[in-house]
Amino acid sequence: MGEHTVSSFDEELGHIDRLIREMGDLAGAMTRASTNALLSSDTALAQRVISDDTIMDAKQRELDERAITLIAKRQPMAQDLRGVVGAIRMAADLERIGDLAKNIAKRVGAVGQSATPRTLAHSIDNMAGLVLDQVNAVVDFYVRREAEQLVPLRDEDEKIDIQYTSIFRELLTYMMEDPRNITACTHLLFCAKNLERIGDHVTNIAENAYYVMTGSQLPVQRPKLDETQMSVEADS
Amino acid sequence: MGEHTVSSFDEELGHIDRLIREMGDLAGAMTRASTNALLSSDTALAQRVISDDTIMDAKQRELDERAITLIAKRQPMAQDLRGVVGAIRMAADLERIGDLAKNIAKRVGAVGQSATPRTLAHSIDNMAGLVLDQVNAVVDFYVRREAEQLVPLRDEDEKIDIQYTSIFRELLTYMMEDPRNITACTHLLFCAKNLERIGDHVTNIAENAYYVMTGSQLPVQRPKLDETQMSVEADS
Repeated sequence: MGEHTVSSFDEELGHIDRLIREMGDLAGAMTRASTNALLSSDTALAQRVISDDTIMDAKQRELDERAITLIAKRQPMAQDLRGVVGAIRMAADLERIGDLAKNIAKRVGAVGQSATPRTLAHSIDNMAGLVLDQVNAVVDFYVRREAEQLVPLRDEDEKIDIQYTSIFRELLTYMMEDPRNITACTHLLFCAKNLERIGDHVTNIAENAYYVMTGSQLPVQRPKLDETQMSVEADS
Repeated sequence: MGEHTVSSFDEELGHIDRLIREMGDLAGAMTRASTNALLSSDTALAQRVISDDTIMDAKQRELDERAITLIAKRQPMAQDLRGVVGAIRMAADLERIGDLAKNIAKRVGAVGQSATPRTLAHSIDNMAGLVLDQVNAVVDFYVRREAEQLVPLRDEDEKIDIQYTSIFRELLTYMMEDPRNITACTHLLFCAKNLERIGDHVTNIAENAYYVMTGSQLPVQRPKLDETQMSVEADS
């Protein structure tokens, strides 16, 4: 690690990739653990997710410093520069995923022991599973430089959005059925929204990774589906 | 703009600062307009905020390209590099503020004409005012390089958080009073949360700006207050 060590640009980039891999693994683990903590009211597990976020932040700082030092020392041009800047951006998205998982974990106490209806718990668990697969896949495809895989992956985000609007609808129903559900359901709503937003960050990462690898943008995305479109009807 | 023009590093950085200023002005205007649209059910105004987000994205891309070209061409060291990287990060936060305002605007239709109670509208309007002041101030202090002003500014974020938890509580009350309020209140809850998150991005910008100017971190922040702490009580 000493500054006397002369390593090649590619070696340095390899190190940055390993940090992306580590951040991706941690982001996935935090997403899974925060959802498990939420659905089983496991405050100890929630606390671990909250602590993990500190590790995530430290990894991002390390990556940023390495990347900026690399730019300053090696003065890379065009494509290499694009790769380093892309890694900085992907790390920012992974760090945001960690934040969102931490935010889910912080709601475990607020949701409390109030039994989440089984179908709802199942839906949230399913949604977390979809999100987790996306987080793991986008990092895999980036590290293995499989640009073409990113196109279908990005489009998969739609499944998460559909799952989210369905959970949104379900939560409104529970709130309407019994006002005593409102506080817990509100927190669950934010948790579901956070999972949906993790999906959005995966989309950002896919776009960045594609640009790093190919130098061009991912084909234009479908219009985004969200709960603002469906709920006018639900309201009437 | 042609590549044959030789401009100094400082001139280039001045151009980047102007883009930050423009993005900041736009972020503030979008925050104000989206809240106004929400409180007066003004779908035309909401639509304008949604279009403005495209301008915001274009400005961020322009800033990013200028910044990266600047790094590649001038190969700045240490402090200068910190400034350019800091500008890229601040632009990312401003772009996120635009996204959050757009998200508020997108909910205007879903909240609909259902009259928002006057006290609640007043609270949301107030909160938007606090947030707007913060957005404007942080960009001013950055562009004028007034590092010391950023310390009290960052701490002001607490007022926004207090306002948010109060709105959160108020909204839960309305939902409990009458189930017919639930859908609209849920969207208002997300809007209030978005305003609170805009405040968080101001904090990020303040931290980045301080680091760019001084090379050191802002003093450690107070523990963040949010609705996850208060609502366990509200639930019982």
